[in-house]
Amino acid sequence: MEAAVGVTDMHKNRLEAFSDGVLAIVITVMLLEMKVPSGPSLGDLRPVLPLFLSYVLSFVYVGIYWNNHHHMMHVASAVDGAVLWANLHLLFWLSLLPFVTGWMGENHFAAVPTALYGGVLLCAAVAYSILARALVAAAGADSRLARALGRDRKGNLSIVMYLVGIPLAFAAQWVAQLVYLAVALMWLIPDRRMARIVGEHRD
Amino acid sequence: MEAAVGVTDMHKNRLEAFSDGVLAIVITVMLLEMKVPSGPSLGDLRPVLPLFLSYVLSFVYVGIYWNNHHHMMHVASAVDGAVLWANLHLLFWLSLLPFVTGWMGENHFAAVPTALYGGVLLCAAVAYSILARALVAAAGADSRLARALGRDRKGNLSIVMYLVGIPLAFAAQWVAQLVYLAVALMWLIPDRRMARIVGEHRD
Amino acid sequence: MEAAVGVTDMHKNRLEAFSDGVLAIVITVMLLEMKVPSGPSLGDLRPVLPLFLSYVLSFVYVGIYWNNHHHMMHVASAVDGAVLWANLHLLFWLSLLPFVTGWMGENHFAAVPTALYGGVLLCAAVAYSILARALVAAAGADSRLARALGRDRKGNLSIVMYLVGIPLAFAAQWVAQLVYLAVALMWLIPDRRMARIVGEHRD
Amino acid sequence: MEAAVGVTDMHKNRLEAFSDGVLAIVITVMLLEMKVPSGPSLGDLRPVLPLFLSYVLSFVYVGIYWNNHHHMMHVASAVDGAVLWANLHLLFWLSLLPFVTGWMGENHFAAVPTALYGGVLLCAAVAYSILARALVAAAGADSRLARALGRDRKGNLSIVMYLVGIPLAFAAQWVAQLVYLAVALMWLIPDRRMARIVGEHRD
Repeated sequence: MEAAVGVTDMHKNRLEAFSDGVLAIVITVMLLEMKVPSGPSLGDLRPVLPLFLSYVLSFVYVGIYWNNHHHMMHVASAVDGAVLWANLHLLFWLSLLPFVTGWMGENHFAAVPTALYGGVLLCAAVAYSILARALVAAAGADSRLARALGRDRKGNLSIVMYLVGIPLAFAAQWVAQLVYLAVALMWLIPDRRMARIVGEHRD
Repeated sequence: MEAAVGVTDMHKNRLEAFSDGVLAIVITVMLLEMKVPSGPSLGDLRPVLPLFLSYVLSFVYVGIYWNNHHHMMHVASAVDGAVLWANLHLLFWLSLLPFVTGWMGENHFAAVPTALYGGVLLCAAVAYSILARALVAAAGADSRLARALGRDRKGNLSIVMYLVGIPLAFAAQWVAQLVYLAVALMWLIPDRRMARIVGEHRD
Repeated sequence: MEAAVGVTDMHKNRLEAFSDGVLAIVITVMLLEMKVPSGPSLGDLRPVLPLFLSYVLSFVYVGIYWNNHHHMMHVASAVDGAVLWANLHLLFWLSLLPFVTGWMGENHFAAVPTALYGGVLLCAAVAYSILARALVAAAGADSRLARALGRDRKGNLSIVMYLVGIPLAFAAQWVAQLVYLAVALMWLIPDRRMARIVGEHRD
Repeated sequence: MEAAVGVTDMHKNRLEAFSDGVLAIVITVMLLEMKVPSGPSLGDLRPVLPLFLSYVLSFVYVGIYWNNHHHMMHVASAVDGAVLWANLHLLFWLSLLPFVTGWMGENHFAAVPTALYGGVLLCAAVAYSILARALVAAAGADSRLARALGRDRKGNLSIVMYLVGIPLAFAAQWVAQLVYLAVALMWLIPDRRMARIVGEHRD
């Protein structure tokens, strides 16, 4: 039994380390899209402003994913091959964030880039949900993780919000942006389900 | 004895951490080759499409290497100087992936870039095989790792497939692409040899 | 009790690993702003010199933050959701360093870029102070960390110095640079408060 | 006593993790200097060849530093503030490698870039030597590390070789290149001093 725990911990550690690495690079590489302006005045910064704003939004999103990933892996009790690939699948969509962030920022939040940005967020949310299911499948339906996730209302609501928000980008881009922002704010509140379970464990 | 285990674990941990770092960067830096298009329409994305497709293929390949590397190091029981350098040799070829991915994508899968891409995959496969041998040499011929690897049919088959596929790029590029894809799919199925050994250990 | 320590250690480890990753990338990506000159003579390096100087300053700053972060996390005894976000907030400002370093260097330390550079340093210092408070709040007012930080005179003095130095950039840029340098030198001396507490613990 | 060991291990772990991160990025970012050529023929690769060759040399150097750093930190028994900064100092010079590698490669191993490349290697070697001294100072003159390093003949010889090789770049660049290569080959042989001490410990 203890051997099994050790094996899982080792898998978890390396999965977390690799995910941390990719997320750390994603969050930093996004800034490389912000080209240094050649002029030295405040006005020279103006073209960079939309890129900066989209960077802030993406930074918050990567932060949320890192936070939730961290809490979920912490409660997870088993890691198998399906989990490893579900995790890589999530990282794939998050690795596209710098590209769509740059495209959306450089085109001043135009309709198509805004919709594509939402599409990548949607795919990442679906990938996160698949990862959660893979972890529950590996841990068992009556595991701490299964109880912590419950019916995953927050995750499902996010997916619905993206599905509503993305088409709205073609009507009014700022509505889509507001939807993305609303999803982020909803997640900024730490995932109490996980925190509760961790708390139970600690007592 | 326990000291020896501790020593090996420390070596393994740092080797894994460094490899994870390099692979995480390789997987992310590839995306930097996908230049953000300046126009905001869907058509502006078209030139990026071949780069995106080659990125997906390379992402899957790096994911496979990370997965197999992870499983192999997990079973490995000893790390020596030869292993450290065999590992760096593998990382060298994988670090060339962003360059050849970009070259192949930007030239719409032309013959020479497609062949060079396969050449780097071939070198990485050979390097992985050398690493496996170095790990077996360090662990002993009757080690768990030696049993897990067996005759390494999957690894040898990959090398043969690359050797066949690369020249085909000059006849019809898409055949070579299909071969690379077939090798990837073959590996996407988790390495059951390793999983079996880990399972034995766990029971 | 031991479970609680284990939980905190796991949180600390991943928070440190992610922060290390971001800081390692920030410190390295800055160099990408230093474009390789096309000519082979020493004179061709001259345009790169101001970028190099601003890189050195930023390298020292990231080194100081890594060092202090390391010491502070080492003494910290509890990590909660507020700490995770306070840490991401600090990383956000530090991730802007490559951009402002490049802008300041490329414009030969002109007034506005110098002031903006100071602004990012100021925000990072405030973010570090918020992180320290979040860690103290999580650990309790009579914790080792609370004693180690004390009234945080050095942190507060840095913030005051930035507030004085930034406007001076518009009068004489080099005065602002000297202020930034003075703050860095003040911190280069290792944080004896932390070292003292660690020493107490060790004895 | 055990507490002290734990404290040192924690310091060592984070120092190693941060160094691994920086080295992993340095080794990968170097490749970004190799711009993807726009044409699809083998001839289009020719301009990239000198960059590739200088990349190979730098990859081997970073590999050597990672290897030696790993072995030295493994034997080290104490980490203090001086060690943390000596380590950052070493990372600073290694972080300049992508820039000088790119400059040397793009200018086809011209005299000045070749000399500057050697200068950065020289500074890194001196920084490594300072780090070794700081580690010995922290561990004590009769520590395992002090015995393992001995008089550090290999390190000193490298510094002498750089000092001889760098001026030779102005007479004949290829002589300097050969000297850099000779130093690398000298180090490719694993540091037996460390290996011996580790072996003693294991038995």
